[in-house]
Amino acid sequence: MSINTIINQFSATRKQTEQICAFLKPEDSVLQPSEDVSPPKWHLAHSTWFFEYFFLIQFCKDYQPFNHIYLTLFNSYYEGAGEKVNRNMRGFLSRPTIDDILEYRYYITQKVCDYIQKKPLSDKAKFVLLLGINHEQQHQELLHSDIKQIMSFNLIETPLYNLGETDEITTTNDWITFDEGIYIIGHGGNDFHFDNEAPQHKIYLHPFEIATNLVSNRAYLEFIQDKGYQTPSLWHQEGYHWIKSEHITTPMYWREDCSKIFTLNGTKDIPLDAPVTHLSFYEASAFALWAGKRLPSESEWEVAASKLHYGLRWEWTNSAYLPYPGYKPWKGIVGEYNGKFMINQMVLRGHSIATAIGHTRPTYRNFFHPHLRWQFNGIRLANDK
Amino acid sequence: MSINTIINQFSATRKQTEQICAFLKPEDSVLQPSEDVSPPKWHLAHSTWFFEYFFLIQFCKDYQPFNHIYLTLFNSYYEGAGEKVNRNMRGFLSRPTIDDILEYRYYITQKVCDYIQKKPLSDKAKFVLLLGINHEQQHQELLHSDIKQIMSFNLIETPLYNLGETDEITTTNDWITFDEGIYIIGHGGNDFHFDNEAPQHKIYLHPFEIATNLVSNRAYLEFIQDKGYQTPSLWHQEGYHWIKSEHITTPMYWREDCSKIFTLNGTKDIPLDAPVTHLSFYEASAFALWAGKRLPSESEWEVAASKLHYGLRWEWTNSAYLPYPGYKPWKGIVGEYNGKFMINQMVLRGHSIATAIGHTRPTYRNFFHPHLRWQFNGIRLANDK
Amino acid sequence: MSINTIINQFSATRKQTEQICAFLKPEDSVLQPSEDVSPPKWHLAHSTWFFEYFFLIQFCKDYQPFNHIYLTLFNSYYEGAGEKVNRNMRGFLSRPTIDDILEYRYYITQKVCDYIQKKPLSDKAKFVLLLGINHEQQHQELLHSDIKQIMSFNLIETPLYNLGETDEITTTNDWITFDEGIYIIGHGGNDFHFDNEAPQHKIYLHPFEIATNLVSNRAYLEFIQDKGYQTPSLWHQEGYHWIKSEHITTPMYWREDCSKIFTLNGTKDIPLDAPVTHLSFYEASAFALWAGKRLPSESEWEVAASKLHYGLRWEWTNSAYLPYPGYKPWKGIVGEYNGKFMINQMVLRGHSIATAIGHTRPTYRNFFHPHLRWQFNGIRLANDK
Amino acid sequence: MSINTIINQFSATRKQTEQICAFLKPEDSVLQPSEDVSPPKWHLAHSTWFFEYFFLIQFCKDYQPFNHIYLTLFNSYYEGAGEKVNRNMRGFLSRPTIDDILEYRYYITQKVCDYIQKKPLSDKAKFVLLLGINHEQQHQELLHSDIKQIMSFNLIETPLYNLGETDEITTTNDWITFDEGIYIIGHGGNDFHFDNEAPQHKIYLHPFEIATNLVSNRAYLEFIQDKGYQTPSLWHQEGYHWIKSEHITTPMYWREDCSKIFTLNGTKDIPLDAPVTHLSFYEASAFALWAGKRLPSESEWEVAASKLHYGLRWEWTNSAYLPYPGYKPWKGIVGEYNGKFMINQMVLRGHSIATAIGHTRPTYRNFFHPHLRWQFNGIRLANDK
Repeated sequence: MSINTIINQFSATRKQTEQICAFLKPEDSVLQPSEDVSPPKWHLAHSTWFFEYFFLIQFCKDYQPFNHIYLTLFNSYYEGAGEKVNRNMRGFLSRPTIDDILEYRYYITQKVCDYIQKKPLSDKAKFVLLLGINHEQQHQELLHSDIKQIMSFNLIETPLYNLGETDEITTTNDWITFDEGIYIIGHGGNDFHFDNEAPQHKIYLHPFEIATNLVSNRAYLEFIQDKGYQTPSLWHQEGYHWIKSEHITTPMYWREDCSKIFTLNGTKDIPLDAPVTHLSFYEASAFALWAGKRLPSESEWEVAASKLHYGLRWEWTNSAYLPYPGYKPWKGIVGEYNGKFMINQMVLRGHSIATAIGHTRPTYRNFFHPHLRWQFNGIRLANDK
Repeated sequence: MSINTIINQFSATRKQTEQICAFLKPEDSVLQPSEDVSPPKWHLAHSTWFFEYFFLIQFCKDYQPFNHIYLTLFNSYYEGAGEKVNRNMRGFLSRPTIDDILEYRYYITQKVCDYIQKKPLSDKAKFVLLLGINHEQQHQELLHSDIKQIMSFNLIETPLYNLGETDEITTTNDWITFDEGIYIIGHGGNDFHFDNEAPQHKIYLHPFEIATNLVSNRAYLEFIQDKGYQTPSLWHQEGYHWIKSEHITTPMYWREDCSKIFTLNGTKDIPLDAPVTHLSFYEASAFALWAGKRLPSESEWEVAASKLHYGLRWEWTNSAYLPYPGYKPWKGIVGEYNGKFMINQMVLRGHSIATAIGHTRPTYRNFFHPHLRWQFNGIRLANDK
Repeated sequence: MSINTIINQFSATRKQTEQICAFLKPEDSVLQPSEDVSPPKWHLAHSTWFFEYFFLIQFCKDYQPFNHIYLTLFNSYYEGAGEKVNRNMRGFLSRPTIDDILEYRYYITQKVCDYIQKKPLSDKAKFVLLLGINHEQQHQELLHSDIKQIMSFNLIETPLYNLGETDEITTTNDWITFDEGIYIIGHGGNDFHFDNEAPQHKIYLHPFEIATNLVSNRAYLEFIQDKGYQTPSLWHQEGYHWIKSEHITTPMYWREDCSKIFTLNGTKDIPLDAPVTHLSFYEASAFALWAGKRLPSESEWEVAASKLHYGLRWEWTNSAYLPYPGYKPWKGIVGEYNGKFMINQMVLRGHSIATAIGHTRPTYRNFFHPHLRWQFNGIRLANDK
Repeated sequence: MSINTIINQFSATRKQTEQICAFLKPEDSVLQPSEDVSPPKWHLAHSTWFFEYFFLIQFCKDYQPFNHIYLTLFNSYYEGAGEKVNRNMRGFLSRPTIDDILEYRYYITQKVCDYIQKKPLSDKAKFVLLLGINHEQQHQELLHSDIKQIMSFNLIETPLYNLGETDEITTTNDWITFDEGIYIIGHGGNDFHFDNEAPQHKIYLHPFEIATNLVSNRAYLEFIQDKGYQTPSLWHQEGYHWIKSEHITTPMYWREDCSKIFTLNGTKDIPLDAPVTHLSFYEASAFALWAGKRLPSESEWEVAASKLHYGLRWEWTNSAYLPYPGYKPWKGIVGEYNGKFMINQMVLRGHSIATAIGHTRPTYRNFFHPHLRWQFNGIRLANDK
């Protein structure tokens, strides 16, 4: 990748993040309604901190930090990077304001551009730069889902923008079959990828079939109307306990009577032919069992990826997020990026309407705890053959 | 009180509230770090709602609400006033923004002024207007303590204004004695007072003495250095359990090493001769026992009030917040103002540096749960004679 | 009181406690379903520890503890008495067994009797002995209420004994009136009483009337049927919040449909003419307001005591549990008995079907947190005159 | 398997369970110190209920339940089997007593023996009988670990029996290597096995090595002394958060100073050459990383099983508990046995000193949440080759 390409990608990514936040009021930017959701201004700052801490401080000899306190304030979870603020305290901090943070952003963006243009990048510096871009793209997706969550609590309807949440997509339902045998999965190339996608390796698959399309709101509504949420035999025990204690009877953002959904563009009729979204793993798995099918494993998904029709929802798999055989975390503090989360989470594959363009690939592994639903995720069915 | 006086007081109070918030950024105005603390923009709106709901809607026949949703959003706890938002959800609402709320304020202020000037006020309308003014003054005090709490979490020091928190005040320590006998306490007049101050009534007091000054930081530091926080025999059992489970070893806003305090004007050296503040009832009571004294009852305090030197801290008494003999709540929905809180709280008397000028009087009863410390409260000692 | 009288009272009290537990299986004796409830075998041991620690160890020079670990295990809350087990851990201890504890009881009972018979008791020793007897009587009452709570969880009905819970008592409803003036309350004599009952002192009362009988189940049922539990204006705010979050719609131990109650003698029809019981302060207060009355203060109750018809339920007053003017805790470690609990609790007066015979007197102050209902408490109404 | 063999195994298993509880006092049998631990008398009853509900009621036409309430009381988690008591309420039930439950046991044991001897068993009945035996053996193991937990809270030392917890076992440390390739794992036979062990299927393994012995207390002590519990880079993020919030600095049952351990046979010196035990998955994983190795996958373990020296501790693997390809739960209500737990748990392989003789096999899959440590589990290391 040429330097010009990288600079362009860097600048475009930085601008895109700011664009996502352009419609926010300062009050929208500071709230943290749950530990999993971060204030939008924190995302703006943390994705900047990433370049400051891992790029400027490491590679730019005479670099002076913008503000030493920011190094603590916007460290997310890197134990090796010094002091940090506990995740559940992000929403306790009114300062710096979003305007202060935008100033911080412009400063760091400029410093990075200056550095890149001054002299040739080492391989290591180039890697960190690409990592920072990809990291920021991940936060762009989180910005969409976090902003949606934040705005959903307001009693005053405030449409922000149209992400395409209600577009019709998933009407047909074909199946493709794969034979038993050894397959290769994982990323084996030199272009940018996360450490958790490697190494490329062989796996053994048993014969299976997989749906070409995602499950629609229409199909999911049938599950609801067939008392899916009241049938314990369809659920993992912990999932059933969870829906009962949380009083969950529909996907997130549905009105309880299944008449309307909340979107970033306001409250809408449920688009019956669009892929269902904002489901936990538990709900996806229960639906699959009700439909007489199952969720695919992440290996099956990856093998089939080139033949699937995308429904623009992250797709829950029945695979736990664990290291691949021979997995090595990146060296140094960025090694904390993925490896330390490899427990208690399930893998999702694909991408969503909120994913940055060009960000994912068939080997990409997304992961969340099985009860989380505020991402734009959905269901693809598979089955033994 | 003449109409002009009332209009002036109304206008001045409205402006004063806005003045308190003038230094805030929108980000400061929306946070709710604990259930007891409300977002500043909520205070701005709720004190406005009070005039809209209890004054304009009741007395102004053709009044149209500014926004029907605001009637729900900014109802605090009046069960009789329709839907409301749970107190612990106030910090989940980014909209309306502080600018929207200031617009709401100006609209309501104008409507009230218009109404007052148009025709003579009924006694009932005049009462509600005065109540609304006094209510807003109470929220001015809460704004100070809530803003202090909100700003205290920021790692970036941002002095807002000087309330006089560190001024020297309380160096001498004299005592006045009162004889046994029947005394009269409570408010017996026709000028504005809260229902909980009435009726005026006789009580029997036993001989007592009371300090003319408040306890200083210097004296409280001695208590700390004498292991007051490690001596269970000084404490109520629930108080001792509370300081241990919350790891409390100093008043709120003190650095653990007793070197500095956080104020609305920045972090300062502890002003040793200023009255100690930000204490729970438990701490005030333990200090008094350590000093070989006790806290006054609210009756003792009121009897002595005219002879005390004020230290500008609310003063914990050893009286539970309960109705006076013959207490009658105000009629109608405003009857929820005081009566329903008469359980589990302790009375404080006096006023503080954060109290609106002219707001209190010797019969005034403030009240908080015994573990709360974010108000500007302090300690006055008393004893049996 | 002669030595023989004391020995007889001591022996009778010790036996009575064992009698209350005689119907228990070992499995019943060890459970602690909530922090407020203690395992019956703990009561058996703690009331024994009280004599061992405060009597034998203090007065009997060559006394050797039965088991040093018991000194820790059965210290309830005396910080001055060395190590103790946290209250919420009492139900984690299977050993010593109830048989071990009965052996401990017999040993201590015998040692105390030996000591008393050997030589004349000092005044201090006599006081501690009487205190130990009265202390054990308090635990007899707790044994009844705690055993009732423990047995209530079993799905298998196991009547234990008849305390008279369903006897008819409270059919008429007369009122007595008292004039305004100075009255004297509190205990002024030399016979045994708790420190919190003293000193005797003057108070000023306003004219009031008080019901001669307690409120019946029949009257309370009317309150329920009149939607008392759904009418927020009748409740303290914290009380209403509490009944809603705990889903409380009847007194404790009533079936939700108001058809039956659980008693220590099995499940029975609700005895409509018996006094209602197992209510929180919040419910008692809400009922009184619904009835157009109020709860008496503890002073009013004590002044009226000699003229009241007892309904054998502890009677909630609207008085907070606070020290009397001039209150001095007992000296030494027993000073922790009462004083450190004087916060956040409300006073109850009278006695109940579970109170040891001869244990109470008109000056006796019982106290519990306002939400607690597992004691045999009830409602007497009063009003301003 | 002949009928006589089955009857013998059934009778021996029933007796063995009672034998494990023979040393308990009734007080030991009723406590539930945490939701994961069940009261011993519940285990005695539930393993009996299993035969009553799944065998006698299904196959024995004229069978009359011992007590209808027991059918509810001792149903663990079978949604299809009617009413049940929530797991966290098992320790609230003093009745039936352990003696009542032993009577229940004898009754059911006799009824099952009578039925078996009367006529030939259908295949289905035989399966349920074997399942019931294996189920009861699982509860024998839980009895050991639950009794250990219950007894550990007592301040009075009460050795119950010697399970061999401190025997020396694991001094050498050899490694065996396995080549890359297709292997077969899972149970393919007709003899008894759990549904989660099937179907037998191919998997692809990458070259690895695996230790022949378990990690010793000595080695684990080195990890502690090398500040393993203070080194975040060794831990999963959730694991590190967990040890910090729970203040965990050693395996369970170690004294904080690493001098002694609690065993079912009393408190002992730490046996340095015995395999370390009572660890969470997080600790096992952190230790492995510290040692420069990793945990084996369950496939690797199974392939290597025949060549390993057993250390009598369940061995944590780095495999999530998920269905095998083609997994089918058993039909009917027993289908709830395993499948609905296949989320959020990690697989353990092998067996322990507490496992019933003959209960496990190389294909056996045990599973627990990653933070749980009250089982007799340990660590075997593996690595890429």
